[in-house]
Amino acid sequence: MIIDGMADRPMKELEGKTPLEVAETPNMDRMAKIGINGIMDPIQPGIRAGSDTSHLSILGYDPYQVYTGRGPFEAAGVGVEVHPGDIAFRCNFSTANDKGIITDRRAGRIREGTKEIAQAINGLHLEYGVQVIFKESTGHRAVLVLRGGNLSDQVSDADPKYEGNPPKQVVAIDGSEDANKTAKLLNELIQKSYKILKDHPVNLERIKKGENPANIILPRGAGAVPEVQPFQEKYGLRSACIAETGLIKGIGNITGMDLIDVDGATGGVDTDLDSITTSIVSTAAQDYDFLLINIDGADEAGHDGNLEEKVDFIKRVDSVVGKVMELDNAVFILTADHSTPVAIMDHTGDPVPLAIKGPAVRVDDVNSFSERAAANGGMCRIRGSDVMNMVMDLTNRSTKFGA
Amino acid sequence: MIIDGMADRPMKELEGKTPLEVAETPNMDRMAKIGINGIMDPIQPGIRAGSDTSHLSILGYDPYQVYTGRGPFEAAGVGVEVHPGDIAFRCNFSTANDKGIITDRRAGRIREGTKEIAQAINGLHLEYGVQVIFKESTGHRAVLVLRGGNLSDQVSDADPKYEGNPPKQVVAIDGSEDANKTAKLLNELIQKSYKILKDHPVNLERIKKGENPANIILPRGAGAVPEVQPFQEKYGLRSACIAETGLIKGIGNITGMDLIDVDGATGGVDTDLDSITTSIVSTAAQDYDFLLINIDGADEAGHDGNLEEKVDFIKRVDSVVGKVMELDNAVFILTADHSTPVAIMDHTGDPVPLAIKGPAVRVDDVNSFSERAAANGGMCRIRGSDVMNMVMDLTNRSTKFGA
Repeated sequence: MIIDGMADRPMKELEGKTPLEVAETPNMDRMAKIGINGIMDPIQPGIRAGSDTSHLSILGYDPYQVYTGRGPFEAAGVGVEVHPGDIAFRCNFSTANDKGIITDRRAGRIREGTKEIAQAINGLHLEYGVQVIFKESTGHRAVLVLRGGNLSDQVSDADPKYEGNPPKQVVAIDGSEDANKTAKLLNELIQKSYKILKDHPVNLERIKKGENPANIILPRGAGAVPEVQPFQEKYGLRSACIAETGLIKGIGNITGMDLIDVDGATGGVDTDLDSITTSIVSTAAQDYDFLLINIDGADEAGHDGNLEEKVDFIKRVDSVVGKVMELDNAVFILTADHSTPVAIMDHTGDPVPLAIKGPAVRVDDVNSFSERAAANGGMCRIRGSDVMNMVMDLTNRSTKFGA
Repeated sequence: MIIDGMADRPMKELEGKTPLEVAETPNMDRMAKIGINGIMDPIQPGIRAGSDTSHLSILGYDPYQVYTGRGPFEAAGVGVEVHPGDIAFRCNFSTANDKGIITDRRAGRIREGTKEIAQAINGLHLEYGVQVIFKESTGHRAVLVLRGGNLSDQVSDADPKYEGNPPKQVVAIDGSEDANKTAKLLNELIQKSYKILKDHPVNLERIKKGENPANIILPRGAGAVPEVQPFQEKYGLRSACIAETGLIKGIGNITGMDLIDVDGATGGVDTDLDSITTSIVSTAAQDYDFLLINIDGADEAGHDGNLEEKVDFIKRVDSVVGKVMELDNAVFILTADHSTPVAIMDHTGDPVPLAIKGPAVRVDDVNSFSERAAANGGMCRIRGSDVMNMVMDLTNRSTKFGA
């Protein structure tokens, strides 16, 4: 169970304490008390991990090997079945005028009708036998996957970043033939999307209502879908992923986990924690060996620089921890994927606390769950890449190396 | 700030305490109290690091990649601008008799006139278009750099180690053509140096005074100058190196740091610590982002097996730490590059204590700076190669890996 971005740095406002240290967390503290504790570097000491690279590392995948960019994980996260070699992009639905200038990068923050619009792009066939897979995500976001034709992810972004400009010409970053071909196809697809979408019924309706139409797509964050050994094949564990955000669902999807949909999960501090709890308990009752749980609100509060909300969310998520602790016969690992200090409003490379509860662990003297208390624990300091090996061993599933 | 060789092992004479544990160090203890502590393996647990390999590791360079021998760092340390591919050597000025026997490996521990003698060798041109760069270091020491001609560092030492022998024939270690060529040039250069130097005015004067002449050069410690990414390019930090010894100055020079000369710095226990302090404070006031500070006396006392001097030097260097702690707005790291136990009189692979003071650190409960107290700290156990990643992250300069 990964409480996204929960860890923090000492804050003046809290007299040198961290949000996790001041939040009332009786259940997490009980985890610390009945478990073994330590600090964990998701990747390496001082390396500032993203949520995606951290989760990959914790699941035993080397992010330096498999992380090719955000595109593939976003695409997998909205349920596109990506294949190794596919080139995936994050996209915006945007508004262009008839001179080709982007007048609204987020198409009036469109929320409805994107599914219909996406269907008008999805399934297109391009030169070189390339197939277009296009799917809406939340709001003005979408994902684009190009399949076939030996394309490359070494291409630049089309998003001009500021309104009043035309889409940026996509170019090959490495100058390779494959990348040139990919850039050419993308530039053509962007123009084509305008032609297809400008008179789409959803957009005609939006224009009638005075809303900006979603009449062009702007891809960015190209990544080649990596060759990832399925989690079940790697560990022999039937696994499910209970996550709120597309990015983490993408990690679950790309590693072949079952994705559990959770009603009311927003990925924010307003998420429905009761619904998440129910979902965890009912999934655990099914025939799974391993659950990956990610709850995102603390990270959002950190990115927003909102101390009060971060402390409050940690306090509320503590009750979810309490329920998960009741699951018998489970090795339960509580941690964060990185620190998102309120004062920094972004991830930092500080280590995160980690507690493991289970019949086999060497219970230590730590009595509270926090960044500092954990450093005195029986696990000392480990890396994200150690976690799955420890899980396998603590559940007596590890393979002996040697005689 | 690296107090060279400060760490030690428990000593019977100190009732099982270490020199650092018994020395009065109120400022270092305050560092421990207001900072975060841990132990550090400069390279890996149990690996017995040199000062050079440890510093490289702490600066984020893999010593197994870039450390090709002591020669290049000594050469860079005396101010020779070495280029990747140069072959560098440490040299002794020695005394040979007219039968070619070395009668004094240190040429009467010559202290003056070596600059003039070196100039007689510097600038020679050898076969294969090889250029000789030769420069005096302290006392009877000098450095030799061979540039051009596709030479190799896989050659043996010329120093016979014991008086009464001729220079050792330099041979190719790997039997390669390049190494054979290099060995041939070196053997010729050694003979040539005798011819050039035996009647050098400085030597005629020495003979007149009954001193041994510096009439031959004996190279050893061949190393090909490695390709090293400049520190500023690697981290974007404008940096300066305040060091006493040629070896550490060489690390600073080869990584492209500005070298700060310190009056009265001897590299021994008799060094001028006030002058070093003044130099640190004035350099910190300049436009630098990063200072590498090395103070060497504790290491010398350790090598000499002098317990009293080691304890006394640690006590005295504590006042320098106090002054550096007053520098505001700085992340300050206090550590050693290795242990030099008095009982061993050489480096050992024991970990060293490390304390970091700065606005972002998770202050722990450690109240004194020592090998043992540090092991209870909030950083647990890290490696030298983690330090720069942590520095970059604690100063909010790190790049996020992932999303």
